[in-house]
Amino acid sequence: MTDTFKSIVIERVSPELDSGRYPVKREVGETFEVWADIFKEGHDLIAAVLKYRTQRSQSWRDVPMRHVDNDRWMGSFLLEENTRYIYTIEAFPDPFRSWAAEVAKKIAVGQDVASELSEGMALLRQTIARLSGRDRQALQEYARRLEDAPTQADAVGVAGEPELEGLMTRHLDRNAATVYDRELEVVVDRMAARYAAWYEMFPRSQGREPNRSATFQECEARLPAIQAMGFDVVYLPPVHPIGRTNRKGRNNALEAAPGDPGSPWAIGSEHGDHKAVDPALGTLADFDRFVSAVRARGMEVALDFAIQCSPDHPYVKEHPEWFFRRPDGTIKYAENPPKKYQDVYPVNFYGEGWEALWDEMKSILLHWIGHGVQIFRVDNPHTKPVSFWEWLIREIQAEHPDVIFLSEAFTRPKMMRVLAKVGFTQSYTYFTWRNFKQELMEYLTELTQSEMQEYFRGNFFTNTPDILPEILQHGGRPAFKLRLVLAATLSSLYGVYSGGYELCENAAVPGTEEYLNSEKYEYRVWDWDRPGHITDYITRVNRIRRENPALHAYKNLRFYPSEDDNILLYGKMTSARDNVILVAVNLDPFAPHTSVLHVPLAEIGLGSEETYQMHELITDTRHLWKGSANRITLDPAVEPAAIFAVRRWTRREQSFDYYF
Amino acid sequence: MTDTFKSIVIERVSPELDSGRYPVKREVGETFEVWADIFKEGHDLIAAVLKYRTQRSQSWRDVPMRHVDNDRWMGSFLLEENTRYIYTIEAFPDPFRSWAAEVAKKIAVGQDVASELSEGMALLRQTIARLSGRDRQALQEYARRLEDAPTQADAVGVAGEPELEGLMTRHLDRNAATVYDRELEVVVDRMAARYAAWYEMFPRSQGREPNRSATFQECEARLPAIQAMGFDVVYLPPVHPIGRTNRKGRNNALEAAPGDPGSPWAIGSEHGDHKAVDPALGTLADFDRFVSAVRARGMEVALDFAIQCSPDHPYVKEHPEWFFRRPDGTIKYAENPPKKYQDVYPVNFYGEGWEALWDEMKSILLHWIGHGVQIFRVDNPHTKPVSFWEWLIREIQAEHPDVIFLSEAFTRPKMMRVLAKVGFTQSYTYFTWRNFKQELMEYLTELTQSEMQEYFRGNFFTNTPDILPEILQHGGRPAFKLRLVLAATLSSLYGVYSGGYELCENAAVPGTEEYLNSEKYEYRVWDWDRPGHITDYITRVNRIRRENPALHAYKNLRFYPSEDDNILLYGKMTSARDNVILVAVNLDPFAPHTSVLHVPLAEIGLGSEETYQMHELITDTRHLWKGSANRITLDPAVEPAAIFAVRRWTRREQSFDYYF
Repeated sequence: MTDTFKSIVIERVSPELDSGRYPVKREVGETFEVWADIFKEGHDLIAAVLKYRTQRSQSWRDVPMRHVDNDRWMGSFLLEENTRYIYTIEAFPDPFRSWAAEVAKKIAVGQDVASELSEGMALLRQTIARLSGRDRQALQEYARRLEDAPTQADAVGVAGEPELEGLMTRHLDRNAATVYDRELEVVVDRMAARYAAWYEMFPRSQGREPNRSATFQECEARLPAIQAMGFDVVYLPPVHPIGRTNRKGRNNALEAAPGDPGSPWAIGSEHGDHKAVDPALGTLADFDRFVSAVRARGMEVALDFAIQCSPDHPYVKEHPEWFFRRPDGTIKYAENPPKKYQDVYPVNFYGEGWEALWDEMKSILLHWIGHGVQIFRVDNPHTKPVSFWEWLIREIQAEHPDVIFLSEAFTRPKMMRVLAKVGFTQSYTYFTWRNFKQELMEYLTELTQSEMQEYFRGNFFTNTPDILPEILQHGGRPAFKLRLVLAATLSSLYGVYSGGYELCENAAVPGTEEYLNSEKYEYRVWDWDRPGHITDYITRVNRIRRENPALHAYKNLRFYPSEDDNILLYGKMTSARDNVILVAVNLDPFAPHTSVLHVPLAEIGLGSEETYQMHELITDTRHLWKGSANRITLDPAVEPAAIFAVRRWTRREQSFDYYF
Repeated sequence: MTDTFKSIVIERVSPELDSGRYPVKREVGETFEVWADIFKEGHDLIAAVLKYRTQRSQSWRDVPMRHVDNDRWMGSFLLEENTRYIYTIEAFPDPFRSWAAEVAKKIAVGQDVASELSEGMALLRQTIARLSGRDRQALQEYARRLEDAPTQADAVGVAGEPELEGLMTRHLDRNAATVYDRELEVVVDRMAARYAAWYEMFPRSQGREPNRSATFQECEARLPAIQAMGFDVVYLPPVHPIGRTNRKGRNNALEAAPGDPGSPWAIGSEHGDHKAVDPALGTLADFDRFVSAVRARGMEVALDFAIQCSPDHPYVKEHPEWFFRRPDGTIKYAENPPKKYQDVYPVNFYGEGWEALWDEMKSILLHWIGHGVQIFRVDNPHTKPVSFWEWLIREIQAEHPDVIFLSEAFTRPKMMRVLAKVGFTQSYTYFTWRNFKQELMEYLTELTQSEMQEYFRGNFFTNTPDILPEILQHGGRPAFKLRLVLAATLSSLYGVYSGGYELCENAAVPGTEEYLNSEKYEYRVWDWDRPGHITDYITRVNRIRRENPALHAYKNLRFYPSEDDNILLYGKMTSARDNVILVAVNLDPFAPHTSVLHVPLAEIGLGSEETYQMHELITDTRHLWKGSANRITLDPAVEPAAIFAVRRWTRREQSFDYYF
């Protein structure tokens, strides 16, 4: 026997992204299944193991794989740690099991197997020679029994004992192994990477006084309300000092009026750089206290990471080589002709000082990680080199695997995907602009059912400081409610920008998706009790999310037929089917619609003639349905959406709930 | 500008098989298209080239790729040589075109572009500095014109001249290139790899006397008839000396009677090994003459390559280490319990002398290549290591790229596929057992439209010495005709085993697919004029193949709707649509069936109200059809199949053919 060539074919390994060029993603606590085609020439039986280790460990563990069907094998292990795991596959000829199978066939047709029995004994002896301890003794006992067997048939009977096969397979000759060409990687994130409700707020607008910035202390006062609504992440736009040169005024005016605070994305001034906080918000110590207060309420802070500088940023003087220069030596501001962003200098990732620049960017993240931040929402990553992000995220997560990166890339689909592949934990999506049934189904199916599910986690924002979508501008309160339900139940990750989402704020700069009087350029004071607010509705939807584990998963989304084009029907269930959620949404905020819904009885595990309970969780009402086809009417003026927990209608429930 | 990291993403390259682990296949004369997603952060324009070279050349050639849509690029080149080509992709930032686009946008909205013009001039000067010769002069002239332009708008006009952009793009700074991670391979075979009709015959049965072997000289006498039928390849089962020990008798009897010739797959005797010819057939010189005679008739010889030995093979004494030994030292014959093949010793590819064995196998092929053989049909490759084939085929084709290997693997699908991936030019298929409409459509769609089309060329055999399929046993002459048409028109590669195919020989060992009185174990004498033969039919079908280039292609198969389950409708057309073939086959050999066929007018380029000519080529009859839906009746007792050449009904044709 030689090990100088690979005798076993191992291919079509799944999951495997772009031949292992990029890692796939999972979350702690999941069982990780690895599939592969594994086969060899001829009739020899083979065995295979799935090998894995964490990135910090040099020693492999392995679990046996089993043959499922048609040369397809599967093995699995539990992802216990928030880290990167490496995995690969090894397969071996299994001469003893091959021999046992052959000799059993021969004895069954009455052939003499004296020679075969000697061969089997030789295999046994070879294995014994390699072993010590208990297994060696057990095999020696088997060898004795084989030799002493009164008849050939008895010997073949001993040879076929499962314990013997188990021992021999456990101690296969690994020298004959074929090792899969590639070592693959799975990034195992903590659960917040997959399941979280985000609340985006401008800290400077969390006070009661117009014309001055609120402070981190004032922000703390908002936390009980945010916690009560059920959010998990409090996301802050940049909190750093804002430049004065070319500062933008209200509604993006070219010149700021005295007292205008400027865009927080124009970072850096004489008060400091990306590692400082805007003095108007407080001190670093105030920031730390705010972070602790958020933590104390079971939430966490997400910070904006925007790589750009105001003309007053200290880098401009200290590192002019990090910027784009004109032939006359002046530094170029950002442009997207004909638009000009005079208050922002983009950074040159290809300039002479690029290595120092990359290191400096890393040090910014480490700085904020040191101040308790574990989530970064990254501004416009698609305008920086993809290689930079791959390097940066890997560097950070090597030491801090709990850090989560959200990519704010609203751009071409392939760029959005590759940013997720190179490391972004989550990504913004096109959800914000998908309003109709067919486009929602197509897009969500792509996100959750195609290969994208291996690496791209869509964080569904209803709105952002830059995007007040048309449906919210014109659809009123029903639109705010239905878009919230869609975001919160289509994806396990979603967010709202609180620049009035709970207040149904819908005033836009005419003809644009920009907010009128946007917080990006001025202080706002919000009346959180303003009539028409949907705070209670948000609270209820977030509680429904929390109480139903089916809604904590991302890839379990399935669409089901509803006969009306305005009504979208979809569901999520746990793999044990002990939590089954069906959601029906009227996508038209203006008019009631009625539709027959087709409940997927077989998938849920219900009989076609069985009565079952549909517990509508927003209104907390219960309905008894039977059969697949059931009619529903959704009036947006009352409730544009229904979230049903589907339950088997058992005798016990009957006795309690019959009249509800 | 630095080149220390990759700034451009190049991914989803197509074709690319298992991340370049295996080559794809094409044929000489094809234009090879390579597609890829290529993109970069931000708004910079990029350029890309497809690089390629033959395996013997170290210097790359490159052709520009063009952006097609949505970050997808395409480039192509002509495959001129029968060899392996290596290809990859390189992409570059295109700063001049990026600059020109930006400055054009700015001038269009009236911005001052003095600074931008200096930047453009700097780019021009950098390029000029790198050049010499005519292009340098041309760029210097442009630089002069830019400087002398009376207005900024004039300068921008000069900057946008296509010739200038072309020059600048041709001389892009290649230091900033991103090179695709992988070099990919395409095996470019000669046309016979894709388009050929095979005729398999036992040379020893080509004479007129029973009880003795025909000779190669007698075989020569058969060549005019084979040529007349229109075959391209004359494939011979093994022609080597046959062992005497444990020789099989007629109808696979365990003991041969005196005079029984034995199976030609039990190779080797005192007369020689795999490099010798059976003395009963003649000498090596006779073989050479036969090969020349085949060549002279525009055909070529395919030889069987069967790696196994009779107990009398010289290797058994010279290289006992190449075989499997029992504990008592005797050599094991082939078994597939409970079946025993006592006349054949399998070879041990894992034994101690494996390297010498592999080299010896290679030397056998080289020997026959030296005797004019360029096609090998490989017996049971799936019982030998996949790595061995990968090595062997690559070794042979490195020196002899014109050599074609046909894999006789009738086994599990994944093994069949991987043998094609590692190098087999063609493969046997499951076609032989696919008789019904749905299964034919599914299997053929998989072969010709899935990723398999990149590497797997199915050679469709109607029958083999081992397989007389049930439909031929029971379907009579109509079955032989319809299976011939299916094989010859579904695939561009097909074959018949002449152990009576043209004579509609259908006597089987009862309950099996084995021929009764198989040529594998005895001499047969055939009466080629036997009543009921379909020689003329075969001749006609092969002529139709030859005359219609659409039938020379493999991947252009498309199925179309026919309303009756017994009638299969499919078509092939050239990419220029100047040869359009539609085939309708009644799959039921026992009864006439009638169906509406749906002709794909739009695909063919016919208007929905246009009259067109359906020229049925087997019967040479013409029909005028109009519209998509047309009714056809196929009576297997008359003609089970119709092969139509579809032609536009022009005025000129009308005047000549109107009454036909």
